[in-house]
Amino acid sequence: MRTGIWLVGARGSVATTTVVGAAALRAGLLPATGCVSTLDPFRELPLPGFDELVFGGHDVAATPLGKRAGQLAEAGVLPPGLPDLVAAELRAADAEIRPAPHTEGPAGRAAVDAVAADLTGFRERHGLDRVVVVNVASTQPPAKPHPAHASLGLLREALDRGERVLPDSALHACAALDTGCAFVDFTPSTGARLPALDELARQQGLPYAGSDGKTGETLVKSVLAPMFAHRALRVRSWSGTNLLGGGDGATLADPASAASKTDSKAMVLEGVLGHPVDGGVHIHNVPDLGEWKTAWDHITFEGFLGVRMSLQFTWQGCDSALAAPLVLDLARFTALAHRAGVAGPVPELGFLFKDPVGHGEHGLEAQYTALVDWARGLGETVAGPAER
Amino acid sequence: MRTGIWLVGARGSVATTTVVGAAALRAGLLPATGCVSTLDPFRELPLPGFDELVFGGHDVAATPLGKRAGQLAEAGVLPPGLPDLVAAELRAADAEIRPAPHTEGPAGRAAVDAVAADLTGFRERHGLDRVVVVNVASTQPPAKPHPAHASLGLLREALDRGERVLPDSALHACAALDTGCAFVDFTPSTGARLPALDELARQQGLPYAGSDGKTGETLVKSVLAPMFAHRALRVRSWSGTNLLGGGDGATLADPASAASKTDSKAMVLEGVLGHPVDGGVHIHNVPDLGEWKTAWDHITFEGFLGVRMSLQFTWQGCDSALAAPLVLDLARFTALAHRAGVAGPVPELGFLFKDPVGHGEHGLEAQYTALVDWARGLGETVAGPAER
Amino acid sequence: MRTGIWLVGARGSVATTTVVGAAALRAGLLPATGCVSTLDPFRELPLPGFDELVFGGHDVAATPLGKRAGQLAEAGVLPPGLPDLVAAELRAADAEIRPAPHTEGPAGRAAVDAVAADLTGFRERHGLDRVVVVNVASTQPPAKPHPAHASLGLLREALDRGERVLPDSALHACAALDTGCAFVDFTPSTGARLPALDELARQQGLPYAGSDGKTGETLVKSVLAPMFAHRALRVRSWSGTNLLGGGDGATLADPASAASKTDSKAMVLEGVLGHPVDGGVHIHNVPDLGEWKTAWDHITFEGFLGVRMSLQFTWQGCDSALAAPLVLDLARFTALAHRAGVAGPVPELGFLFKDPVGHGEHGLEAQYTALVDWARGLGETVAGPAER
Amino acid sequence: MRTGIWLVGARGSVATTTVVGAAALRAGLLPATGCVSTLDPFRELPLPGFDELVFGGHDVAATPLGKRAGQLAEAGVLPPGLPDLVAAELRAADAEIRPAPHTEGPAGRAAVDAVAADLTGFRERHGLDRVVVVNVASTQPPAKPHPAHASLGLLREALDRGERVLPDSALHACAALDTGCAFVDFTPSTGARLPALDELARQQGLPYAGSDGKTGETLVKSVLAPMFAHRALRVRSWSGTNLLGGGDGATLADPASAASKTDSKAMVLEGVLGHPVDGGVHIHNVPDLGEWKTAWDHITFEGFLGVRMSLQFTWQGCDSALAAPLVLDLARFTALAHRAGVAGPVPELGFLFKDPVGHGEHGLEAQYTALVDWARGLGETVAGPAER
Repeated sequence: MRTGIWLVGARGSVATTTVVGAAALRAGLLPATGCVSTLDPFRELPLPGFDELVFGGHDVAATPLGKRAGQLAEAGVLPPGLPDLVAAELRAADAEIRPAPHTEGPAGRAAVDAVAADLTGFRERHGLDRVVVVNVASTQPPAKPHPAHASLGLLREALDRGERVLPDSALHACAALDTGCAFVDFTPSTGARLPALDELARQQGLPYAGSDGKTGETLVKSVLAPMFAHRALRVRSWSGTNLLGGGDGATLADPASAASKTDSKAMVLEGVLGHPVDGGVHIHNVPDLGEWKTAWDHITFEGFLGVRMSLQFTWQGCDSALAAPLVLDLARFTALAHRAGVAGPVPELGFLFKDPVGHGEHGLEAQYTALVDWARGLGETVAGPAER
Repeated sequence: MRTGIWLVGARGSVATTTVVGAAALRAGLLPATGCVSTLDPFRELPLPGFDELVFGGHDVAATPLGKRAGQLAEAGVLPPGLPDLVAAELRAADAEIRPAPHTEGPAGRAAVDAVAADLTGFRERHGLDRVVVVNVASTQPPAKPHPAHASLGLLREALDRGERVLPDSALHACAALDTGCAFVDFTPSTGARLPALDELARQQGLPYAGSDGKTGETLVKSVLAPMFAHRALRVRSWSGTNLLGGGDGATLADPASAASKTDSKAMVLEGVLGHPVDGGVHIHNVPDLGEWKTAWDHITFEGFLGVRMSLQFTWQGCDSALAAPLVLDLARFTALAHRAGVAGPVPELGFLFKDPVGHGEHGLEAQYTALVDWARGLGETVAGPAER
Repeated sequence: MRTGIWLVGARGSVATTTVVGAAALRAGLLPATGCVSTLDPFRELPLPGFDELVFGGHDVAATPLGKRAGQLAEAGVLPPGLPDLVAAELRAADAEIRPAPHTEGPAGRAAVDAVAADLTGFRERHGLDRVVVVNVASTQPPAKPHPAHASLGLLREALDRGERVLPDSALHACAALDTGCAFVDFTPSTGARLPALDELARQQGLPYAGSDGKTGETLVKSVLAPMFAHRALRVRSWSGTNLLGGGDGATLADPASAASKTDSKAMVLEGVLGHPVDGGVHIHNVPDLGEWKTAWDHITFEGFLGVRMSLQFTWQGCDSALAAPLVLDLARFTALAHRAGVAGPVPELGFLFKDPVGHGEHGLEAQYTALVDWARGLGETVAGPAER
Repeated sequence: MRTGIWLVGARGSVATTTVVGAAALRAGLLPATGCVSTLDPFRELPLPGFDELVFGGHDVAATPLGKRAGQLAEAGVLPPGLPDLVAAELRAADAEIRPAPHTEGPAGRAAVDAVAADLTGFRERHGLDRVVVVNVASTQPPAKPHPAHASLGLLREALDRGERVLPDSALHACAALDTGCAFVDFTPSTGARLPALDELARQQGLPYAGSDGKTGETLVKSVLAPMFAHRALRVRSWSGTNLLGGGDGATLADPASAASKTDSKAMVLEGVLGHPVDGGVHIHNVPDLGEWKTAWDHITFEGFLGVRMSLQFTWQGCDSALAAPLVLDLARFTALAHRAGVAGPVPELGFLFKDPVGHGEHGLEAQYTALVDWARGLGETVAGPAER
């Protein structure tokens, strides 16, 4: 099952780490640490193998992947020496990166078609069974509502009129679904989360997943919040502070973009606890941290007879190293879902997202159980009655 | 269903908070924060009500419960004013506290019988349907192995010969089971965890549960460890430091007693992760902390392509306030199990213990699911076919 | 030396704690923990005694001090029972609290005169040798610049024309200096920090001190920053997050007011390190924290051969308990300075401030040495040649 | 002023980093971050230049310095590529490393003479003006008291009788002082801290300094403790936990060796605060941390009216990178002291030690001031009257 992974933001840190990592796993250079889809419950599933993955993508930047990989190795995100060992794969992926659509380029239908043509070309050149488009580009501000978002019919009319009604992330989702590709939004941007695009996905028989990969602070929240809830301890405040460097820090220093992020980060608590809590999520740009991220969460809670207690945690993580294996997982799971005929949102991939499409389970373990059950079901569907 | 709770260590901080809290809940003075058995999934079960609980116990100390409650209010464990509001209940429980068996008192069968007589008297004076004995006394060193522990027959012979073969916690378990009382060990001491006593419990048709209430640091570990495991992140080291004051700090400053505790605290990690990790659990006595406990855990883990990351947490909790509602939960659940005919160890109560009897599930959410399923099953058993 | 302490914001938490504390110290109920002026180097100085202090002040609120003290005792800021023991002193101070000037009340000279009349009345009723006005009111946004701030002559003309050219804190400073009272600004508001008021203070032979009491996070910064500097370690980023509840949290949730605070908090680092660092100071409102404040600072630094390291600290303090003894210290030191003939800003009190008037020493230990030397000098001045 | 630095433990991480770093500084490859002796107040002093330093030493290990440097670069202690750039210097130092005296080799006078011969040979081969011996070997348990330690006369008799009365660190100190070399103990071992060796140093007109380089947790303590003291805040408990990997972690997992370390770490608090505090210093071996060290300190303190507050800090440092520049500083300062005729202990170098010889100032800033004053005095002494 040759499977294409088309990365929107293909020269960013997450994308580069994904391409390097897939090559390293294929070559057996390193264990698949951080790859959920390689855990025991998923081992027998007909997921595409690491040697069946082909990479391409869009980006506005032009720095070659090999150079980006070198920078990441210097920053400690990749082992020194690894970029050289996978240089051929980096060059191959590089050759499949196309310039991202320009905001002053064609609008409406023409813009969608231009992206779609890139996807179709990629699929055909490599004879791929299917392609999963994964958005790992910079977070964009919440989309401005537009009447054309409400239905596929209205959207098509607006596109035909040449209107710019879709934010970038949704433009990519639209082109993906139009050309028969599944879509995954690893960012909190709009992506496929518009009624019109949901309609398109169902019509095309394509799965889509999102939003916003759950890589660090929110991952921890998604186990601590159920802990408090199931122990009947009342969370009174939960303040999260995120220190980010790199491009992410700069992007999220812009309050509009940060709103997408802090909204999606805040979902978990209210989703699990069932009531709002004081505190909020704050993002501070600290360029010196580079590819690393430090999050500090301070939680106050109340126990028996009203006694006040607290829990703090400090998470020091490398975002790209946390995100890249999940990108591989998502592409593999979504390809399987596509093959099994799943259409529309895939809430069962919520284990990997801060703000899961489709429904509201936010506790990590419940999400894990749901993922295992769902993936096994897909495996059986694909295998057919003979294998049961 | 009038239910007795017989507390071994009845004048300690946990026991005092339990008695005060039960009285406060019965009177509707405060919400049942921290009481798992009052959560939605358990609400319709035929658990004994807070107004059906009667307290008694053993202790070597003589300080009246009212005075102990006053001390706890000063230390911020109980709301000021609450001890006065429940003074009558404290006096009632006080009247049912008997001197704990003296290490230089009668040995063997006579010692068991003396404890048993106290239990029988308690049950009869109050016309109780059943009694649950809960050990909340100071942690004792791991028991010295003795051949008489191996079977009920050998144990009975040794007791009849007047030998001191049982450590205190096991003596209480033996007397409880002999007189038809269920037994819960909230400490890491031996309790009912001897083949001879397991045999006795099964023979008597009595449930027993334990060991070591999961109240703080280990609670957090039991959600974080599965998080790492299910995300395929490799935990490389996990160092836990516990600063304790109060009696606990002093007891656990003794390396022999601490061994019981750190052993039971270490279970979770290896149980969940499936491999040993560097680090260990350390307990330091800091008398100034009084009833409060601070734990700091430092975890290093490895992600994609070998990148090293870390997580730290600081837990600042009040042990008695965390333990007391669980004592009530355990008494209520165990009473229901007794009524439903459960005999032998109850692994499904592992949600509340660091080192669950019976089997090895250590992930908190899996334990919670198991508890809910089990409790519902008991409810159906007790209700009988008519209610289904 | 009967000394009046006139508190602007006399019914706030800091003021209430100050009045209660002074009464407790006078009565010998508690040791003077947190009072710098009681340390060895200051013990023999002719500072006004705790039994020579008389309290009054302005406030917009009307809640009696006794009630406020009760609330603080419930919040754990004051020992339970203490408010009752000092009820008489609280009533006495209460009787000397006047309504703060209303923003819609008289303007210009009339407003200054109204405040001045309250001060004069206070001094005369109690036969005070001198009065120190201390601003402990809520932080105000940075003052809008006005030409009348540039000199005493221009200010007087503007006041005579009935213009509102002074923000509240400066209005109080102006009235204090006009009536021969020393002035201390414990907040980051404008206070006496206008050229016109500086001129007034020098003309009147009065000392003034400020700004912004150094009570928590910044206190720690003021020892850690010199540590890095003197060890030749290069600080690369320093991110401070402050979680505040109470009135302070609400006030500082307003970005304009917060600007005063974060500006003054940022002084220390650049002052000590001599170069700007990434990071910044952030204030988040967490109402649940009440009178308590938690600050988390994350510092990255570079050592030998460019190795990156980090230091984090979490400060959990009670702001009123940290501020109140410093208010007493400042009143005592400033009274002595007044007596010794000091006129204008007192940089030597920088040990107690985030943003010291007059000059830029920000390292805590250097400030301590300067304070000790200065205070000893004052003692000698006051004692006269005979005592040397 | 050609100056030899003779490192006891010359193939360890600290020594290797020192040699690499000195070469990098000499070549101007990197700034002298972490080198106190390059700060402004010391810039004009006649300290030996980095290009005047020559390295040699003793070690039991045989791994070449070049290989050790490669390992340190892999561990992130040295910049990748740096070891190659300074390969010639590493080879030169390597050629001057001699096998450390064997515990089963010659004893008494013969053992001292063997070490002394190595020192003399080193000095002569390189035509050095002076040599400073710096002990950076593994920490040894506290020395067993012996009557021969009491005076130089008794020591000489015992050595002449061939007795093993000196622990290794003291043997090196004895040989150093015998041959006219100054001695610095960067570890908590005995070193020159015996009355007999103090007598020897004074007789020979040689300075000695120590003990135990203040590189991390204790450095932070030495600024925080004075902060509490000068603010009249009462420290109630101070618990320090040190997680160490590498050789250090293994050595200090041995309680006997750890005793030397925790004793010297505990000095600061009582020295500054003037009273003992609950808590203690704990060292836990976590091999996974490698060359890195994480310390967590938890401090409880009492403020005004008895309010309890807390401060925690987490230090994440690279011990070798913190120690190496101090080794260079100590060698440079001690060489200057030697030249200026200082004999006996040098308490003014206490700024760089956990447990300063000679007297008890433990506050970091007071130590810094003392160091600056002392070094300036030496500079004047050396320069002579003409330059004043």
